[in-house]
Amino acid sequence: MSKNVLIMEGDGIGPEIIAEARKVLEAVNEKDGLGLNFVEGMLGGRAYDAYGHPYPEETREKARAADAILFGSVGGPQWDGKTERHLRPEAGLLDIRADLDLFANLRPAITFKQLADASPLKPELVAGLDILIVRELTGGIYFGGPRGIRTLENGERQGYNTDVYSESEIRRIGKVAFDSAQKRGKRVCSVDKANVMEVSVLWREVMEEVAKDYPDVELSHMYVDNAAMQLVVNPKQFDVIVTGNLFGDILSDEASMLTGSIGMLPSASLNEGSQGFYEPSHGSAPDIAGQGIANPLATIMSAAMLLRYSLAAGDSADSVEAAVSNVLDQGLRTGDIMSAGMTKVSTSEMGDAVVKAL
Amino acid sequence: MSKNVLIMEGDGIGPEIIAEARKVLEAVNEKDGLGLNFVEGMLGGRAYDAYGHPYPEETREKARAADAILFGSVGGPQWDGKTERHLRPEAGLLDIRADLDLFANLRPAITFKQLADASPLKPELVAGLDILIVRELTGGIYFGGPRGIRTLENGERQGYNTDVYSESEIRRIGKVAFDSAQKRGKRVCSVDKANVMEVSVLWREVMEEVAKDYPDVELSHMYVDNAAMQLVVNPKQFDVIVTGNLFGDILSDEASMLTGSIGMLPSASLNEGSQGFYEPSHGSAPDIAGQGIANPLATIMSAAMLLRYSLAAGDSADSVEAAVSNVLDQGLRTGDIMSAGMTKVSTSEMGDAVVKAL
Ligand SMILES: CC(C)[C@H](C(=O)O)[C@@H](O)C(=O)O
Ligand SMILES: CC(C)[C@H](C(=O)O)[C@@H](O)C(=O)O
Repeated sequence: MSKNVLIMEGDGIGPEIIAEARKVLEAVNEKDGLGLNFVEGMLGGRAYDAYGHPYPEETREKARAADAILFGSVGGPQWDGKTERHLRPEAGLLDIRADLDLFANLRPAITFKQLADASPLKPELVAGLDILIVRELTGGIYFGGPRGIRTLENGERQGYNTDVYSESEIRRIGKVAFDSAQKRGKRVCSVDKANVMEVSVLWREVMEEVAKDYPDVELSHMYVDNAAMQLVVNPKQFDVIVTGNLFGDILSDEASMLTGSIGMLPSASLNEGSQGFYEPSHGSAPDIAGQGIANPLATIMSAAMLLRYSLAAGDSADSVEAAVSNVLDQGLRTGDIMSAGMTKVSTSEMGDAVVKAL
Repeated sequence: MSKNVLIMEGDGIGPEIIAEARKVLEAVNEKDGLGLNFVEGMLGGRAYDAYGHPYPEETREKARAADAILFGSVGGPQWDGKTERHLRPEAGLLDIRADLDLFANLRPAITFKQLADASPLKPELVAGLDILIVRELTGGIYFGGPRGIRTLENGERQGYNTDVYSESEIRRIGKVAFDSAQKRGKRVCSVDKANVMEVSVLWREVMEEVAKDYPDVELSHMYVDNAAMQLVVNPKQFDVIVTGNLFGDILSDEASMLTGSIGMLPSASLNEGSQGFYEPSHGSAPDIAGQGIANPLATIMSAAMLLRYSLAAGDSADSVEAAVSNVLDQGLRTGDIMSAGMTKVSTSEMGDAVVKAL
């Protein structure tokens, strides 16, 4: 039974890093006889240029039919302020999240042992770091209404957005976090701002309810300001962090940066089925696009997550991750993770090395 | 003409640290003939215990009459879940901010040269760090409505809050940031989430307008997720950061922690007059309360800000700050900032040393 994998390059360094991840997926497809069928589509700024929409109808149809989606990255200065708000490249990303109900965003923040020195934190704070951030991705202030800019009676304008979560939305992301924790360190830290926001009060209550079904997992709560501090001062205290869309956006970026391995970190966005959207945690890096120097490993690691979560090909995923570790052990480094004594390679040389190591 | 300074201990380590800051204020009052008149009041958990409200009427009257307020810290486990939401210790803090219209929260994130090694970041990233975070403190999602928890037609509950800013609210905090930047590095970075939130779109627009009146100050914009990363990876790129209430809460805590000097960092909350509310950036630390080991220097530095911003006593403020630097040079350290070769002192020994150095 063949599986459809939709591959979309996106903007900036997207085409370069996707090319390498595709090489790896094709190699593992052949090696392990996975029967993958690759389809191509467009999302983001270049999709807007080609179709007039960052999530064109054609992409929507392919996305709905796909078992899994591998994506590069979105956005660049050439689209800034050029289009209506709902046609910006980023809007395409928000559209596909909503359209496929990709409510569970899993972002590992892991320090690769070969790269611990690259962290801005002191090495002892990050060596062996392994956090999983579970971010709610289709609710909260990202999608809540009413929203907009209105004119008040006194003539001045006022901007407003609504942060909103229902019990069922909180429960389903809570379950994802507890299920994940059960397979890891068995601790969930739920992050909110319940000392100020009512939506957080409900969040906290529902997390407590979900926890009852997982007696082997320990639940703690932390305010978001404290979480932002604790990530810096003692990141290893965390196992799984679960939080809403906006806090997850902020904390997952902070956490990924302090590993020193941002060029290495994948992400998965899942719905209630096995369908998933996989992309690197880093952005589209327009400043280095087209130069062949971007690090393709985060995208390759995203392909590994795709194999594991959407195609039930855990062994193939393991072999991709082992191949990545192998090339790091060989001392191969793209510019972003280069250090003394290592061998500097290009984007495609890195991809080729991973294929060879498979 | 005498000036009224309202002093409130608050909860946790509040009484201990306030006692030392008061010693210092009294000494400088005498030395410089400032004519300060000290008044006492209660705010927070112990105010609730004594008056049934965390911001009692008596405190409100004293606060309105004061030229400046020095505060310790708020909250502790003994009040958790014990009272209605609007009577929690933290609610008292939110009440006084609203009542006195303390819209401008200034939080310096500075690395003391004597303490650069205490940072979780690599020393070269934080040596000489000097950021000023200007956080809007009386608007945004903290005070916006509608808010609450409602039951939907399908029977499930839904929590909701409203993030809201009007042009005039954005403009007045923007001016504070630009005025501050003019006296410093002449760069303002405005942090928002304009790629997702309409309230941020208006925020960004108004900041651009304010910038026109400050041709000597450079304005840049950054998304909050990126700001959380940039603070970790390259904090010295920032001079003044201006942002809304919620993002300011998160980023100022993150920034203060990465200096390694959290026990040293003051804060000021100002209204449109010269009235101000001054408190340390750290919390009430209930775990070490009553042991005489808390670091009083952040509160003493807050007293220095009080002298400078609300009492126009800049020279006195300078002398307090010089005295603090002097005791650090002497090698005196409370437990939180202790390192090899230094002399460990108690809360009151530290306060006495600052008075002596004055
Ligand atoms: C591009 C932007 C809309 C997006 C978000 O805020 O969710 C990005 O920051 C992310 O985290 O995937
Ligand atoms: C105690 C709490 C309500 C408060 C806030 O969120 O503003 C605190 O975190 C602060 O930053 O002063």
